[in-house]
Amino acid sequence: MEGRRSQIVLGLDPDPNALWSTAGEPVRGISAESSSAERAAIAVADHCRTLIDATAQACVATKLQLACFERLGAPGWSALEAVAEHARAQGLLVIADGKRGDISVSASAYAQALLGGTQTPFGEVAGLGADMVTVNPLLGRDAIEPFVTAARAAGAGVLALVRTSNPGAADVEDLELAGGGSVWERLAAIVDELGAAGVGEAGISDVGAVVGATVPGHLARARELMPSATFLLPGVGAQGGRVEDLLPAFAPGRAGGLVTASRSIANAHLATGEDPAHAARAEAERLREAAWALG
Amino acid sequence: MEGRRSQIVLGLDPDPNALWSTAGEPVRGISAESSSAERAAIAVADHCRTLIDATAQACVATKLQLACFERLGAPGWSALEAVAEHARAQGLLVIADGKRGDISVSASAYAQALLGGTQTPFGEVAGLGADMVTVNPLLGRDAIEPFVTAARAAGAGVLALVRTSNPGAADVEDLELAGGGSVWERLAAIVDELGAAGVGEAGISDVGAVVGATVPGHLARARELMPSATFLLPGVGAQGGRVEDLLPAFAPGRAGGLVTASRSIANAHLATGEDPAHAARAEAERLREAAWALG
Repeated sequence: MEGRRSQIVLGLDPDPNALWSTAGEPVRGISAESSSAERAAIAVADHCRTLIDATAQACVATKLQLACFERLGAPGWSALEAVAEHARAQGLLVIADGKRGDISVSASAYAQALLGGTQTPFGEVAGLGADMVTVNPLLGRDAIEPFVTAARAAGAGVLALVRTSNPGAADVEDLELAGGGSVWERLAAIVDELGAAGVGEAGISDVGAVVGATVPGHLARARELMPSATFLLPGVGAQGGRVEDLLPAFAPGRAGGLVTASRSIANAHLATGEDPAHAARAEAERLREAAWALG
Repeated sequence: MEGRRSQIVLGLDPDPNALWSTAGEPVRGISAESSSAERAAIAVADHCRTLIDATAQACVATKLQLACFERLGAPGWSALEAVAEHARAQGLLVIADGKRGDISVSASAYAQALLGGTQTPFGEVAGLGADMVTVNPLLGRDAIEPFVTAARAAGAGVLALVRTSNPGAADVEDLELAGGGSVWERLAAIVDELGAAGVGEAGISDVGAVVGATVPGHLARARELMPSATFLLPGVGAQGGRVEDLLPAFAPGRAGGLVTASRSIANAHLATGEDPAHAARAEAERLREAAWALG
């Protein structure tokens, strides 16, 4: 963050029908441009790499929405790997946004897929090599712990959903508990507990939280409950959140908050009529400045 | 179910280090046996197909644990597609067990990946074509609805996590609410509500629930809250649940419960020393008889 003077995360959730271009360079692992999936995956990878090149200097990380790659099948997964590799080459951290959550043996398999690797009789199969993964804590501690263990072994981090940015968050996350507090506050307590052993020199833990930027009032309370957690802050831009309202996230320092924006960067040109890369760079830079000024 | 006289779901969560054999026939979409991932994916697909062949006559569906395929990257996704296709050819329903959950636009993308398909400038990309998908309801109704919409369009179904079979379920799902009832009971109410418009002639809805078989006391209450839901019942066998305790699940008829077993079938030979296929078939048949006798 200090190097880039940025807390901005470039969210990549590529829609094959809203690419900057439908051309594309070959992608390793996609053998031929024979099927719709292969051609779409190549175009999606190309779009993401171009978007990364346009905005990397204003960003500290990229967040890959796994759903958008999975819908292109095996070629989509190859595109995902190619985009992650390109992001790393541009100096960006890679956040695998899959919101996985399962019982322990399956959570371990997801952690192998995204953070570590898998020993097989045919040799080790490398995972995606993400620097952070989003996880869903509904199933409780034993569904999160395998990710924390794998992340610590890999020098990576975990971001658990605590209070999301969508209207439906009111249905479950906001429910009040008989013992006091809400479901999301209980999730915050679990994050704080699991992260206690992973607080580094900067005072930031390797277990963080996803806290939507759409309801700013929650941020101060979330920070109280999770003093050392990095907050991944979705909801700025297309979902209505404003950078200026994020101040409580940065209480432990600038590394306390990662501000993620997807469509507002990728689609900036639709409002201005500019070249897509130029508009994206300008929007990412605007967000970078606004967030950095809060620190 | 009537045709097979079975409510048994063959759970497939292949561990590359516990395959019946490490040989394998070619898999479409995996171009060469050059990498560890490709060779492992071919062996995993072969293992799953052999296990399906051994047990299909005693089962009504197969449940694919997506994590176990994703950890093999793009070749793993090709293996997943090949196994799903083989299961369908053997007359089994396919349950994609990914426990996905995300905000609406991303939930729609997951639904495209697993249930429907994706329109692209390069033509339609088919999804996995699952008959049912597991989803995580922590994010609320708007995270589930896109799956329900896609499932209805495809003649498929959705199974939302309500009360899982792992010890960590106590951490969040079992929390008591200020308004009465527990978190999981509230999730059950959401399932019942979203499924109301999808109750078919047999009295069973297209929105079902995952209810662990490890705490039988929950089943009667779950059935009370979700009278029309199909219950996917994990936890029998390796996790300690017993078929005999599942009776409340079948209150609306035999189609009210899908009994899923994974390791207890695939690893049955480890206890008996028999041929793996023979032991698996015998265990699946034992489960089938025990469950069918309850109806």
